[in-house]
Amino acid sequence: MSLLTVGSVAFDAIETPFGKTDKIIGGAGTYIALASSFYNNKQFIVSVVGEDFPAEMLSELEKRNVDIQGLQIKKGEKTFFWSGRYHNDMNSRDTLVTELNVLEHFDPIIPDAYQGVDYLMLGNLSPQVQRSVIERLETRPKLIAMDTMNFWMDIAMEELEKTMKLVDVLIINDEEARQLSKEYSLVKASKVIRDMGPKYLIIKKGEHGALLFHENKMFFAPALPLEEVFDPTGAGDTFAGGFMGYIASTDDISFENMKRAIINGSALASFCVEEFGTNRLMNITYKDLEERIEEFVNLTNFDMVQVIN
Amino acid sequence: MSLLTVGSVAFDAIETPFGKTDKIIGGAGTYIALASSFYNNKQFIVSVVGEDFPAEMLSELEKRNVDIQGLQIKKGEKTFFWSGRYHNDMNSRDTLVTELNVLEHFDPIIPDAYQGVDYLMLGNLSPQVQRSVIERLETRPKLIAMDTMNFWMDIAMEELEKTMKLVDVLIINDEEARQLSKEYSLVKASKVIRDMGPKYLIIKKGEHGALLFHENKMFFAPALPLEEVFDPTGAGDTFAGGFMGYIASTDDISFENMKRAIINGSALASFCVEEFGTNRLMNITYKDLEERIEEFVNLTNFDMVQVIN
Repeated sequence: MSLLTVGSVAFDAIETPFGKTDKIIGGAGTYIALASSFYNNKQFIVSVVGEDFPAEMLSELEKRNVDIQGLQIKKGEKTFFWSGRYHNDMNSRDTLVTELNVLEHFDPIIPDAYQGVDYLMLGNLSPQVQRSVIERLETRPKLIAMDTMNFWMDIAMEELEKTMKLVDVLIINDEEARQLSKEYSLVKASKVIRDMGPKYLIIKKGEHGALLFHENKMFFAPALPLEEVFDPTGAGDTFAGGFMGYIASTDDISFENMKRAIINGSALASFCVEEFGTNRLMNITYKDLEERIEEFVNLTNFDMVQVIN
Repeated sequence: MSLLTVGSVAFDAIETPFGKTDKIIGGAGTYIALASSFYNNKQFIVSVVGEDFPAEMLSELEKRNVDIQGLQIKKGEKTFFWSGRYHNDMNSRDTLVTELNVLEHFDPIIPDAYQGVDYLMLGNLSPQVQRSVIERLETRPKLIAMDTMNFWMDIAMEELEKTMKLVDVLIINDEEARQLSKEYSLVKASKVIRDMGPKYLIIKKGEHGALLFHENKMFFAPALPLEEVFDPTGAGDTFAGGFMGYIASTDDISFENMKRAIINGSALASFCVEEFGTNRLMNITYKDLEERIEEFVNLTNFDMVQVIN
């Protein structure tokens, strides 16, 4: 099937307890597209970069069968830049620099060739931009998923509420779910949030895994316990990209298949954090992914029926 | 099979954001014995109370087939008392009062009838007391599990190390695992700790579930996401009691069966937190437990093979 990713393609500079990077490639759209490219879909991307963005990375996306005609290159402008420093526990970070640059006036133009796309993944962007993408698609995709963040809850809650009404799957982290719902219990939060629009809610809990809620059903997938988390940047976007990439390639939006999609997303995210930026994702194969999924099966699988020898 | 629980039988006074209690029945030994009494074992307990301890609770344990001849009642002395206040997130608490009373000079005397016991669960007590129980058993149980806490790591690390060498399963929480191993990553911590003696390590992560480590194998069980955590007191002990109760009743210490035991322990712990103290555990049936285990199966079960319709 076809999958449209909308999200930032950007530069990041990252400090972790293990070291720091210069400007490297990042952005939600980049991680989503890289993760979803492990699956067999027609891939589209709508995003924007400045003329400072390296051509090699655009070729890299094309090599992975991402159609980049929706990726605008703004002459004389600069790519979005974010810089952050992770604390020792890797669970929190400080933003050091945010330069919106090309993102400030981003108009998400949908190429004609993208019309009729089957699945849509909206990475974290202003809720107005996210909504305009949905409104510009002439036919509604089979499933629309979106990410957002506390920043938009703080400054654009009304816009966010309007956009949430139009999506099927909301993917946010536990803190964001608590802020959005004003409930501490994630079970309670999930009800409040699903009353705001999305029929499906995925709450990411970082190293503590992810929860999927739909109707009266609930599914939990752990994160893979790792020896070392080197750099958490992009893990949530990678998760979302793996989730939607798997859904689109299987063309199955049943709850059972969403579970598999979450395991796929979790497996890809577990690679993402092993090196700085996109390095690890760029260097794994589909076979590596299959092996990691097997590790998730072993980690969580149990059979309540005891076989007596 | 037979299972010996060693642990405090005590009074607690608890404050949570939902309310506060007067002195109610608590103690690691109480929670372990109550939880393990859901399984079909011969149950022994070694503990100590003062003469202020209510006879009704002792009858309650006997009604649940706990042999209480190892539960010493000290004339003229008072029962161990702990009082604590939970913070709003329920993940941390302040100790308000600790009165050791009868625990100060506790000598864990093993009744003759307890010799030859099949399984041993050592609740949190001083490592010297825990070790003397092991030394006083004439035959080594098939599996010895122990709980401990950061307090003993702070003040009695050498004693703790000696005791850890004698046990098979160590059950501690994530903070304790980090303190004991001086490693932040729980995967790394698990290796350091298992080099100290226990072949099996269970790391409890509270609302984030539990991990079991053995050789190169790892299993993860989530906690059941709940609408409300009313009082977390005793949840860890209930988990341990359910774990060892299940192991003893099935008489199977394979890794596969330990997974089932962890799900049983997690299910019982999920009841424990729903009301103050032991109230909920005292009022559920085996059928309630079976239904809750089914909820765990539904929560975590996935099949990576997609059935194409």
